[in-house]
Amino acid sequence: MSRYKALGVDVKKEGIQAFKGVVDNLYPGAFCVITRDPTNPSMGLVSHADSAGSKPIMSYLCYKESGDPSWFKGLAQDAVAMNIDDVICVGAEAISFIDYIAYNTLLIDRVEMLAALSQGFADTFKMLEENGLPVLFGGGETADLPDQMKTLDVCGALFARVELDKVVTGYEISPGDVIVGLRSGGKVGYEEEANSGIMCNGHTLARNCLMRGEYLERYPELAHPDRARFTGSYGYEDRPDGLGMTVGEALTSPTRIFAPIAAKVLEGVGDSVHGMVHNTGGGQTKCLGLGKGVRYVKDALPEPDPVFHLIQKEGRVEWREMYEDFNMGIGIEFIVEPEAAQDVIRIAESFGIGVQIIGHCEKSEKGNSLKITSRLGEFSYAGD
Amino acid sequence: MSRYKALGVDVKKEGIQAFKGVVDNLYPGAFCVITRDPTNPSMGLVSHADSAGSKPIMSYLCYKESGDPSWFKGLAQDAVAMNIDDVICVGAEAISFIDYIAYNTLLIDRVEMLAALSQGFADTFKMLEENGLPVLFGGGETADLPDQMKTLDVCGALFARVELDKVVTGYEISPGDVIVGLRSGGKVGYEEEANSGIMCNGHTLARNCLMRGEYLERYPELAHPDRARFTGSYGYEDRPDGLGMTVGEALTSPTRIFAPIAAKVLEGVGDSVHGMVHNTGGGQTKCLGLGKGVRYVKDALPEPDPVFHLIQKEGRVEWREMYEDFNMGIGIEFIVEPEAAQDVIRIAESFGIGVQIIGHCEKSEKGNSLKITSRLGEFSYAGD
Repeated sequence: MSRYKALGVDVKKEGIQAFKGVVDNLYPGAFCVITRDPTNPSMGLVSHADSAGSKPIMSYLCYKESGDPSWFKGLAQDAVAMNIDDVICVGAEAISFIDYIAYNTLLIDRVEMLAALSQGFADTFKMLEENGLPVLFGGGETADLPDQMKTLDVCGALFARVELDKVVTGYEISPGDVIVGLRSGGKVGYEEEANSGIMCNGHTLARNCLMRGEYLERYPELAHPDRARFTGSYGYEDRPDGLGMTVGEALTSPTRIFAPIAAKVLEGVGDSVHGMVHNTGGGQTKCLGLGKGVRYVKDALPEPDPVFHLIQKEGRVEWREMYEDFNMGIGIEFIVEPEAAQDVIRIAESFGIGVQIIGHCEKSEKGNSLKITSRLGEFSYAGD
Repeated sequence: MSRYKALGVDVKKEGIQAFKGVVDNLYPGAFCVITRDPTNPSMGLVSHADSAGSKPIMSYLCYKESGDPSWFKGLAQDAVAMNIDDVICVGAEAISFIDYIAYNTLLIDRVEMLAALSQGFADTFKMLEENGLPVLFGGGETADLPDQMKTLDVCGALFARVELDKVVTGYEISPGDVIVGLRSGGKVGYEEEANSGIMCNGHTLARNCLMRGEYLERYPELAHPDRARFTGSYGYEDRPDGLGMTVGEALTSPTRIFAPIAAKVLEGVGDSVHGMVHNTGGGQTKCLGLGKGVRYVKDALPEPDPVFHLIQKEGRVEWREMYEDFNMGIGIEFIVEPEAAQDVIRIAESFGIGVQIIGHCEKSEKGNSLKITSRLGEFSYAGD
């Protein structure tokens, strides 16, 4: 069993099949579920829900230690990113967003937490608007759930639309297509601070590998009893060599929003974009769900950001598993006709983001497969 | 402090003001946030999120005791009801729904829980379609959060639309308007089983008042440590006199969906409907948020369903608080011109639901207020 599965997180999402027959989905296998607009049959509707995962636990830890509620602020961007960058992977335009915040009233001051989160939402939607992507914010629901939530859960739902003849289905992914990857770490022109690159996935593992056990003793609400163990040697204010920020900052670094860049790519060379993959749950193996009979060959991935090296080293996690649990430095991938690759790179570079060709596609005789070749090893993964 | 607030649930939602300036809202004070469709300015968009609250804790208790995952099934209807019957209160038509299920992987079998919930969603959407309200189901997100969730949280988000000249804003509520209430308990023509009437609010209090302490010893994950206490005398299979079902069935009875009836009311006498109130958080006092300068006089409420009497008696809860925490037998209210009241009653009765005039509106000199007069006492409540 993977170290992550032992911690109670199944990146393969067993049991989700039960929903397959119930869901209205025009393009099974596309990155998001798309339904036909009942009042406008040429339009597709994308309703999407996702959360910041277990990342809020780290924000809570820093909040409790420092007394500073601004540690919650970045979770707003996380919740938006997890939705808007999923729906743009099918080419959909975000229309309106709502949040859902469930938390333990007995441990978190509601007023200061909501003030920090509302500031986070305001900043995030301002950035999106300034970058040509206005999103309506419909508020949402704050649920007082002291008997269900150990700490908190920060979620969002996004409603989006896409003209059906412009959907990026993933069905056209072909041998010879090139995979262009955008960096999840560093700093983009529309951001205020450098990003650790960790995004919203792999946090249960990251926390358990890095953080000192004393936190669990002090705040038993940080984990399920008897199972999760903080085995690391770091305090949240520690600044390990090469990380460029504190451990607390690295693990709460808000997920980069790629939508402004992706929108420009679609505007510029949309016809050449055969697939897009937001590297969330499943990390670098997320592409396995997209397309049919595709062998993804990633042989030019960048060096993973320092946070991934730190987690791997402290947790002695196999590199093979690291690629399954984390984005490893590439947050979103464009699978494009080879002729369009340089255009994608040029558009991305105009935003000041790190971008490179990370691999290509071949034909797979059976289901989808992925081969990663890097200085850290050679790893093969099979899709369904 | 109310007994409920002491349990960590604030029905008055302090702190939510932080979001007021951030949210795009065409009709502040309407029952839901409505935004203008950027591509069709005569159309309003309603994006809504809500959950089954703490009701899943009771489903979990019954599941653990019986080993039967079908106890989770009704939570699907709860999540849909909490959304569709909120958005219909502004006259909006539901388009698509997505779920968000966060749960503790280490305590709940994912496969059998998801099978039960997907059956619940399928049955719910079938009923809605048969009653002229097809809703697209876009799937959703299942989040493995063993370190955040003690048990589980079942949520949904609904996207809906309304022509802006047909929005039920609540602004037209006037002195002389009549309040027609629909029963939350009993059985409606399109339902399979009798409903306890409890819906999705007040469950933390209900559970703590009714259930035996031994459950908390057996399953400490049912509550926040040291705070919540099960002080009741019932097992989940007990069948108290007059309840007509077991305590487990009463507390997991799926929230009635009123949308098919409300849609017919709007179709028939929509011009006379000045407001609609879905009695969720805040119970019978929910109307306080709707309209301006309205004194709601409820002097003809029905006898509360047996489940409310049971909770009140076992928990020795003040009746004044009972009306603030529970719907007390009326799930949705139509505030209409007096001439239309009999039409609303006739339409509702055609569905076999209990319906009656429960009060009327007067002018309030200051903010909104509510006066309840019943054989259980006279209670006054003030709005913001």
